[in-house]
Amino acid sequence: MNYFVIVDVTLREGIADPEGATIERALPALGFSGVHDVKAGKSFRMNIEADSQGAALEKATSLAERLLSNPVIEDARARLGEVHAQ
Amino acid sequence: MNYFVIVDVTLREGIADPEGATIERALPALGFSGVHDVKAGKSFRMNIEADSQGAALEKATSLAERLLSNPVIEDARARLGEVHAQ
Repeated sequence: MNYFVIVDVTLREGIADPEGATIERALPALGFSGVHDVKAGKSFRMNIEADSQGAALEKATSLAERLLSNPVIEDARARLGEVHAQ
Repeated sequence: MNYFVIVDVTLREGIADPEGATIERALPALGFSGVHDVKAGKSFRMNIEADSQGAALEKATSLAERLLSNPVIEDARARLGEVHAQ
């Protein structure tokens, strides 16, 4: 069965986020006030063949930690999206 | 009130995704089989001051479309995370 899995990669707490900081600084001049703590991250969407939701998430987590993120500075979390009909 | 909002930016259907394609090609050699349709995207997390969830989401959607994405090739969607105690 195919499971649609989304992996979110975010910077760990305390790691400098110049992209987020730059966006946040630019917002007031562009008419957006009251927006704080902007953090930039990455996401990866994929279809994973597996026997169960748990197995799909386990494969995604392993893949995310080994390939999609830098564990020194980033956290990676896998979650299920809706099942794709294929 | 502060609302924690997550903006997901993904490539539109049909737009070439070389990052996702490169990851997908590399997976079998690294021991991950059965992973298909890998798509790379971006995400932005932020706290938004607003009177209601709807107002926070509306501000995030407007901000996402104007600043965080390229509407020619990308879709941007805002969703609520958990409320931050601040």
